Amino acid sequence: LSSKLPRVGTTIFTVMSKLAADVGALNLSQGFPSFPADPALLDLVTKALRANHNQYAPMAGVPVLREAIAQKTADVYGINYNPDTEITITSGATEALYAAITAVVQPGDEVIVFEPAYDSYVPAIELAGGIPVYITLTPPDYAIDWTQVAEQMTERTRLILVNTPHNPTGRVWTRDDLDQLADLIGDRDIFVIADEVYEHITFDRRPHVSLMQHPVLQERTFVVGSFGKTFHVTGWKIGYCLAPADLTVEFRKIHQFLTFSVSTPMQYALAEYLQQPERYLELPAFYQQKRDLFLQAIAGSRFRYVPTEGTFFQNVSYEAITDEPDYDLAIRLTKEIGVASIPVSVFYDQKNDYKILRFCFAKDDDTLLRAGERLVKWT
Amino acid sequence: LSSKLPRVGTTIFTVMSKLAADVGALNLSQGFPSFPADPALLDLVTKALRANHNQYAPMAGVPVLREAIAQKTADVYGINYNPDTEITITSGATEALYAAITAVVQPGDEVIVFEPAYDSYVPAIELAGGIPVYITLTPPDYAIDWTQVAEQMTERTRLILVNTPHNPTGRVWTRDDLDQLADLIGDRDIFVIADEVYEHITFDRRPHVSLMQHPVLQERTFVVGSFGKTFHVTGWKIGYCLAPADLTVEFRKIHQFLTFSVSTPMQYALAEYLQQPERYLELPAFYQQKRDLFLQAIAGSRFRYVPTEGTFFQNVSYEAITDEPDYDLAIRLTKEIGVASIPVSVFYDQKNDYKILRFCFAKDDDTLLRAGERLVKWT
Ligand SMILES: CSCCC(=O)C(=O)O
Ligand SMILES: CSCCC(=O)C(=O)O
Repeated sequence: LSSKLPRVGTTIFTVMSKLAADVGALNLSQGFPSFPADPALLDLVTKALRANHNQYAPMAGVPVLREAIAQKTADVYGINYNPDTEITITSGATEALYAAITAVVQPGDEVIVFEPAYDSYVPAIELAGGIPVYITLTPPDYAIDWTQVAEQMTERTRLILVNTPHNPTGRVWTRDDLDQLADLIGDRDIFVIADEVYEHITFDRRPHVSLMQHPVLQERTFVVGSFGKTFHVTGWKIGYCLAPADLTVEFRKIHQFLTFSVSTPMQYALAEYLQQPERYLELPAFYQQKRDLFLQAIAGSRFRYVPTEGTFFQNVSYEAITDEPDYDLAIRLTKEIGVASIPVSVFYDQKNDYKILRFCFAKDDDTLLRAGERLVKWT
Repeated sequence: LSSKLPRVGTTIFTVMSKLAADVGALNLSQGFPSFPADPALLDLVTKALRANHNQYAPMAGVPVLREAIAQKTADVYGINYNPDTEITITSGATEALYAAITAVVQPGDEVIVFEPAYDSYVPAIELAGGIPVYITLTPPDYAIDWTQVAEQMTERTRLILVNTPHNPTGRVWTRDDLDQLADLIGDRDIFVIADEVYEHITFDRRPHVSLMQHPVLQERTFVVGSFGKTFHVTGWKIGYCLAPADLTVEFRKIHQFLTFSVSTPMQYALAEYLQQPERYLELPAFYQQKRDLFLQAIAGSRFRYVPTEGTFFQNVSYEAITDEPDYDLAIRLTKEIGVASIPVSVFYDQKNDYKILRFCFAKDDDTLLRAGERLVKWT
C-alpha cells in the first residue's frame, strides 16, 4: 500500500505523551488538563444516558446544543448564527478543521498557512489535493509581515487558515490583524478557517477578537470551537463549526460522510452545562494563575520567555543554555529530569529550530511547581 | 463556494427520521433501536467518567479496549490481531470506512462497489478522487454474477467494498462468495474493505463468515466493526478497524487527522462490557424474534418479502400493490398511515426502483406490531 501521506509519522503528541508515561515524567507536552472536570458536568452525562439519549443524534447535532451555542455566541460576540442552518456539531475541532478544509479545497488550490502551525492542517490540505503556501513567523514576536502575505497570494489562493489564540505561540490576533486580512482578501473568492478553540483562554485582559466579529471576514469564514478545551474534557471529542448557511451546506455534506453524527449523551450534557456562562467566563483568571505560577516557578532558570497572550501553552527559549536541537532536548529532558514538552520545530514545514520548547500549563499547581523546580535545577 | 459533492443532498436517514418525528410516525426508517440500552453498560460509562477518564485517549484507542477487541475477535473468528499495531478505534464505523477509503484510493483509482450500497461509500471514494465502478445486484436474491465482476475489473482497480451482512438487503456472504472474490483478486495489488457492522446479527443459524477468516483476503482487508449496532448505542459513535500492520499504519495516518481520537469514557465502558460475550452472542435470537414478529405482523398484507438473512432490516416488495415510485410511497406511508421506511432506490447510483421498501425491525415489539397493523390495513 503506497502512502497517501508519505511524510507523516506518528504525531508529536502521541510520541511525547507515550514517552512521558513510559518514563514516569511530568507531562507538560500534549495539551490536556491534568485536573478533573467539573463533577456537575459529569452528572449531566449520566442524566442523559439514563434519559435514553443513546441513539444517533441528528447529523448536524442535537437542536438544544446548537441553540445553546447560538445563545452563547450571541452573548459573547454579539453575532447571531442560525442553529438550523449555520451551526454543526463535530467529533472534536479536529473533525471540523478536516471537514472545512475538505469542503473548500479542490486539487491544485493553494492554501495560506501561517507557521508554526497545528499539525493536522497540512495533511488535510494535501489529502484534498491542495498546496500549502507557508508564511513563516519567527520568535520572539511572531509578527505577520502583511506585505509578504500579499506577495504569496496568487490566482489559485483559495483558503487561508487562521488560528487565534495561537497554538503553539500563544499569540492573539488583534482587530488590526483582521482588518489587514480582510483588505488582502478584498472581494476575491477566498475562504477562511478560524481555529478558535482557545477562544476563552486569553490573559492580561486582552480580548479574543473572533473572525466572526469582522463583517467582511464573517461571511467567508468557518469558525471552529471546542468544548474539550473549554470544559476540561479533551477526551470527549465534541467541537463545532459556525459558518454562513451556504458554507454550512457544503460543510455538512462532508461531515455527514466523515462521522455522520456525534455522541448524543455528551451533546445533551453540554447543552445544559452551557446554561452557566460563568463556567467559561472564569477561564481567563483560572489559567492566568497557572501561567503565572509556571513562569514564577522557572524564573530562577536561564530559560527566556515572552508571557503568552492566550491558550494554555508557554513557549520558552533555551538559546542561552544549549544549542542542542529542540527535538533532542525535549526527549532528553523527559528522560533525564522527568519533564515532557513539545519541540516547536515540529510545527514548521522545514522543521525550523529556534531553540524553543512548548510547555502546557493546563496542569494542577503541584505538577507545575515540580516541573519548574526540575527545570531550574537543570539549568 | 462550488460544491465538492454536487450530487449529494441530505441523507435519506435524516430526511425520513425528521419527517417521522414531524408527523409523529412510527420510525422504521433509520437503523437504530427504539428500546433502551443495557443499564449495566450505562453504569460503566458513569464509572469511567468518575475515574477521570475524560482526557484524550491514545490516537489508536485505549489499550484495554483494543485488547478486549483482540480477545473477542480471537474467540469468535479464531483470528488474532495485534492490539498495538492492527486495531484502531474510530468515531463510528462511518469514520473507519472514510479513513480506509482515503488511505487506499488515489486519484483515478477504480473502486468496485456492489449496489445497493450504503450511502457513505461513494462520496468518500469521490472525495479521494476515485471512480466508483458499480456491480448492480437485483431482487429478489441479489445474487452476484462473478463473471460480470471479473469483466468490470481493470488495471486501475484498486479497492473492492464488501458489506456482509448486507444493508439494505439482509444478504449474508458465504464462504463460496469469499473464495470467488479471492480468486478474482489473485495476486493483484487490490485492497478490500469489509463493512461487517452487523457481524452479530444473522438468522436461521446462518453463520457470518468474516473476510478475516479467509487467509488470502485477510492480508489485504480492512474489517470494520461497530459497537453502536452491537450494543444498542448507535449514538455513541464508537467503531473500529482491524487490518494488517502495514495497512493499519496508513489507516492511522488518516484517522489521526480526521478525528485524532475517540470518546475516552465510552471506550473504557465498552472494554469492560466486552468481558461478557453473552451480550453479543444473544443477538441472533433477540433479533430473529423481532424479524419474525414483524413478518408475522405483515403476513396478512399484499407485501412480498424474502426473510432477511442478517442485519436488522427487512426489505419488502410492494409490486403487487402499486407501481408508485418507492421514494414517493415511503413519504406517503409516513404521512398517511404513520409508518416510516427507507426507499431502496436511494442505495442505487441510478436510483433503480424495484418497488421495495426497507423496514428496520430494531424496534420494541409494540412498535413492530402497530406498524404491521397499519401496513396490513393499508393494503
Ligand atoms: C489532539 S492531541 C494535541 C492536543 C493539542 O492541541 C496540543 O497539544 O497542541
Ligand atoms: C448513520 S444513519 C444510518 C443508519 C443506518 O445504518 C441505516 O439506517 O442504514
